[in-house]
Amino acid sequence: MRFTISTKGKTDIIDITSRVKEAVRRAKVKNGFCLVSSPGSTCGITTIEYESELLEDFKEFLENIIPSEKEYRHDKVWGEKNGFSHLRSALFRPFLVIPIEEGNLVLGQWQQIVFLDFDSRPREREILVKIIS
Amino acid sequence: MRFTISTKGKTDIIDITSRVKEAVRRAKVKNGFCLVSSPGSTCGITTIEYESELLEDFKEFLENIIPSEKEYRHDKVWGEKNGFSHLRSALFRPFLVIPIEEGNLVLGQWQQIVFLDFDSRPREREILVKIIS
Amino acid sequence: MRFTISTKGKTDIIDITSRVKEAVRRAKVKNGFCLVSSPGSTCGITTIEYESELLEDFKEFLENIIPSEKEYRHDKVWGEKNGFSHLRSALFRPFLVIPIEEGNLVLGQWQQIVFLDFDSRPREREILVKIIS
Repeated sequence: MRFTISTKGKTDIIDITSRVKEAVRRAKVKNGFCLVSSPGSTCGITTIEYESELLEDFKEFLENIIPSEKEYRHDKVWGEKNGFSHLRSALFRPFLVIPIEEGNLVLGQWQQIVFLDFDSRPREREILVKIIS
Repeated sequence: MRFTISTKGKTDIIDITSRVKEAVRRAKVKNGFCLVSSPGSTCGITTIEYESELLEDFKEFLENIIPSEKEYRHDKVWGEKNGFSHLRSALFRPFLVIPIEEGNLVLGQWQQIVFLDFDSRPREREILVKIIS
Repeated sequence: MRFTISTKGKTDIIDITSRVKEAVRRAKVKNGFCLVSSPGSTCGITTIEYESELLEDFKEFLENIIPSEKEYRHDKVWGEKNGFSHLRSALFRPFLVIPIEEGNLVLGQWQQIVFLDFDSRPREREILVKIIS
């Protein structure tokens, strides 16, 4: 199953848990693996408690280890100023496998699946939810 | 298969390799994928050489990039002072897929599967080992 | 399917996309999961745009967060001076699951699969490509 989301870029963090859960319900799979992915080299997928203050902490952490305002060598190649986006994506690879048991994703109570758009501009992004039982 | 471990929190690093291998043996699967996961937003799973000095290096590295003593915005929301735990978990996502060949996990000689408890307090944690062939 | 690569170590970044695609073609699987992995505790696998300037940015980023010249406790245990290699590997775990649709890996246009050899010396590395449908 695929769905599309509109992002603002600049480390936009989007909660896709309900969309992924919907895909799992539709697949009617009792037990299996759910692979959530998105084709692209400037995005990521992970899980986090979707709480607004924590999301700010997360963005600050990213700025500390991979600053968005720094000049990267890659920025001079295409002139897109998104070297930082690529580095963040290499770290938060846009592929995540979550177990399915009794028809449900096995996640913690405060654990949401998030799509991370690291690009420097708004994007349309395709999320692919693939299930194997 | 599921099993429970007791952790001390504070980046407790627990070698779960033998427990996971046991689950693989019991499943009697010759070839497949083994998904090791734990529901929760303050833990992680990765592989590392389980050598005590290296584990200290690893903890120091984590303190450098995501300090536990820093004040995070999230700490004021719930008063649990575990903002750092959530950030570390978003980075070391508690989902890992390892190949199975000829009935065995394919791992390096010095490569152990570790559960990382980043929370600020001791926890009981459930590890889910799911196998697909 | 397995294949071997020769690396120079020292964060050698090797584009293995075409080799993985070849394995997918040979498997003649229309839909499924492709697990790319390598047994070892001083290597990693991720995706990145394989552009030479960006690869330099990536190496600089790694030097910033896990310096190769720093003295690690682990270095005194075996005398191999590759503590940094182990830490980088724990962060960039050598296991990656990519979806297959209509016989092809689902990757972005600028997204390559890379093997990261963090070790301090040249190595022969075995890459295992395992497919489940």
